[in-house]
Amino acid sequence: MLVNGKHYLSVWFENGKIKLINQLLLPHKFEVVSLSKVDEVVSAIKKMVVRGAPAIGATAAYGMALGVFNAPRKGFDSHVSKVAEKIKAARPTAYDLFHAVDFVLSSIEKCGSIQEKKRLAFRAADIYARKSADECRIIGEFGARLIKDNFRILTHCNAGWLACVDWGTALAPIYVAHRQSKKVFVYVDETRPRLQGAKLTSWELLNEGVEHAIIADNAAGYYMKKGEIDIVIVGADRIAMNGDFANKIGTYEKAVLAKENGIPFYVAAPSSTFDVSCESGKDIIIEERDENEVHYIDGKRITPHLAKAKNPAFDVTPAKYVTGFIIQKGIIKPKEVKKIFKVGKK
Amino acid sequence: MLVNGKHYLSVWFENGKIKLINQLLLPHKFEVVSLSKVDEVVSAIKKMVVRGAPAIGATAAYGMALGVFNAPRKGFDSHVSKVAEKIKAARPTAYDLFHAVDFVLSSIEKCGSIQEKKRLAFRAADIYARKSADECRIIGEFGARLIKDNFRILTHCNAGWLACVDWGTALAPIYVAHRQSKKVFVYVDETRPRLQGAKLTSWELLNEGVEHAIIADNAAGYYMKKGEIDIVIVGADRIAMNGDFANKIGTYEKAVLAKENGIPFYVAAPSSTFDVSCESGKDIIIEERDENEVHYIDGKRITPHLAKAKNPAFDVTPAKYVTGFIIQKGIIKPKEVKKIFKVGKK
Repeated sequence: MLVNGKHYLSVWFENGKIKLINQLLLPHKFEVVSLSKVDEVVSAIKKMVVRGAPAIGATAAYGMALGVFNAPRKGFDSHVSKVAEKIKAARPTAYDLFHAVDFVLSSIEKCGSIQEKKRLAFRAADIYARKSADECRIIGEFGARLIKDNFRILTHCNAGWLACVDWGTALAPIYVAHRQSKKVFVYVDETRPRLQGAKLTSWELLNEGVEHAIIADNAAGYYMKKGEIDIVIVGADRIAMNGDFANKIGTYEKAVLAKENGIPFYVAAPSSTFDVSCESGKDIIIEERDENEVHYIDGKRITPHLAKAKNPAFDVTPAKYVTGFIIQKGIIKPKEVKKIFKVGKK
Repeated sequence: MLVNGKHYLSVWFENGKIKLINQLLLPHKFEVVSLSKVDEVVSAIKKMVVRGAPAIGATAAYGMALGVFNAPRKGFDSHVSKVAEKIKAARPTAYDLFHAVDFVLSSIEKCGSIQEKKRLAFRAADIYARKSADECRIIGEFGARLIKDNFRILTHCNAGWLACVDWGTALAPIYVAHRQSKKVFVYVDETRPRLQGAKLTSWELLNEGVEHAIIADNAAGYYMKKGEIDIVIVGADRIAMNGDFANKIGTYEKAVLAKENGIPFYVAAPSSTFDVSCESGKDIIIEERDENEVHYIDGKRITPHLAKAKNPAFDVTPAKYVTGFIIQKGIIKPKEVKKIFKVGKK
């Protein structure tokens, strides 16, 4: 997607280096980071220089390729295994991380020579990243069919191209609709505590020229009740086989409010988000993050010095609040998830 | 209530001066402001050094008394009228402001001498402030009956003693229950965009020794669904005769979520909040505040430079989501509002 009128991906490989847009500095500073060592890749994932499951996945794939390329001939296999473990441990709950590393490993598994493995590892990473971007574009094309001219769309957090390699998930339908010259207006939940909506989604939409307004998370219900929101589209971190899904904290609130106000609520997600081993939302464990994310904003304390805070990072929205999932194969109902993914994958 | 173990009111009169706790500096700095001129009173109300309808009312009453006291004998009546207009215009939507000024004026109306008026004006302001604090204490006593031992309570914004003269509205039942040695735990919505929960409610609860945790507004639904919230208690800015009410943005969201999760939802409010001229929530106009309240936190921009934001300050919660109103007369159902207030006041 566009940054100051020029096309960018959130992660790519160039001149022997992995390039990442530093998401920690946005929206105030646009900086591209270059990584040439596996340790740098692990650190970038840990520190959230790169975030969003598909973007993390692509970064991990390139990181794995880098590890394969730099592995010594002597003890090659054990070195590669160590690199794989190291990258997988960068953020232990990110499913795409595992998937990406294993994709590169299995791609080189049957190669005869080490030299061949080194060459193919990069090709595998490129394929992984391109497939990821393509899937998002297709999600965007299906999702855009739901967006009519003059639609006002609510989105939560950042499920945009920064979180993917390109296009995004929840934002992809908006970008496609916008490029189809449909007039759209996006209400962007600022998404406390980490403010990904205020910082990243707004930055993406500004760069693509999509009209929008940032709102406090508290105001989403107000606009729904006022009849000013026609559709809600969010991303997902993990989708269970019964159609329950986990996403950024606050998603559940917006889903309940959408249902109460008769507003269609869609979840846009790549196939890697559907977890065949997860029967229902009850199986999803919610990460409790550092309470300082609530206490501090951009390094400044906003709460009393001795106050306590609680900071669940995600919530689970039951399937009954979901109108449909926008996936690479089209738009499906929650009750179709099991049929499509469980059968398809097993 | 307590500040560092010492009892304070949010506004009081001492040695010829109006004393206010400067709410703009909390929670990081506790400062008492002294006002000795009407212009200073108007400025303190405008700049939100004092906030919360009952606290603004008491400040206005003392300000009016100051104006009467300092009025010259020559042209006394016209001077007093001008002071009244000036104070009423400080925040035009604050109903308590009008009420307080008129209370002082009507109290001195029938006095014979100017000297008597000057003396009685302060007495009237004292009565106004004391009645306001007493009403909150009684609300607290009724409300505390709803709170069982080990209850976990959610509250939104700051409807505490800082917003009143003492005790608070939504927080009064919590303070009374706590002093009755019931074990309570309060989930405090941080309440974006102005963060009154994170800054003021938490500060109040810390000083009173009430166990609590600040949460992002996005997390309230998560804890409700998890079964970790037993009751929701909020304040109100204006209550219509059909039981609809306006309160800080986000209240509507929490009310819908409480209903969805079968959690009792109560509104604690002094009688001045019930507006007999307002039939339903449709008659309440919502103030749209400066979008910079969303863009900036403590002076620091969090959004992209060119981004737009929308900032409705309040929302209206329909009566169907309200379990009951906690008022000076006890706990009433939304459908009883009209009977009690319309008949009582007309």
